[in-house]
Amino acid sequence: MRYKGLTLRVLGRRGPLIGPGKAELVERIAASGSISAAAREMGMSYRRAWQLVESLNAAFREPVVTTAIGGRRGGGARVTAFGKQVVREYRRLEDKASAAIAPGLKRYQRYIP
Amino acid sequence: MRYKGLTLRVLGRRGPLIGPGKAELVERIAASGSISAAAREMGMSYRRAWQLVESLNAAFREPVVTTAIGGRRGGGARVTAFGKQVVREYRRLEDKASAAIAPGLKRYQRYIP
Repeated sequence: MRYKGLTLRVLGRRGPLIGPGKAELVERIAASGSISAAAREMGMSYRRAWQLVESLNAAFREPVVTTAIGGRRGGGARVTAFGKQVVREYRRLEDKASAAIAPGLKRYQRYIP
Repeated sequence: MRYKGLTLRVLGRRGPLIGPGKAELVERIAASGSISAAAREMGMSYRRAWQLVESLNAAFREPVVTTAIGGRRGGGARVTAFGKQVVREYRRLEDKASAAIAPGLKRYQRYIP
């Protein structure tokens, strides 16, 4: 992933909605069609990935990830069109924030060795 | 704390430098003069707070927090002038990023119930 100098977490009034971990997880589920494959790629337990998916589906107006009924553990997960939009928009916000504070982020590097 | 709709984490080339948790911890240490008081206020273990302080001091060019030699556990912590600048500048970046993507963050609220 391109170095942006920051990560962003979007908060709703009732708490965190999405940040770098959930966004990457959804992107990897979309690419692999599997929660367990996405979790493995990120060095995350299946249980943790599942919790993140549940919290995404609970936080947003529509499901972000759906799983096939009767699917085996880790089989048949799909990112909805709505979920893709949510993540795409998150990436847009991240890019925009990064561009807006790029000079400040660069100056910040004076503080590190 | 004022609702900004986001949190920001600043990354260096070698990893995360500072985010909302570390920034708040430093601010609370500055206010209380004590790592254990700051940890308690944030519902964080003393051990965890100490680890965050150590990682801050290791990541930046100069110490962010100093502790008195021989001080009892949790006694006599001080945020350096350098540390105050690091956190002030972080808050500035956060405000600037928040302002830059405010319309996008507002639109994002359509995605939640």
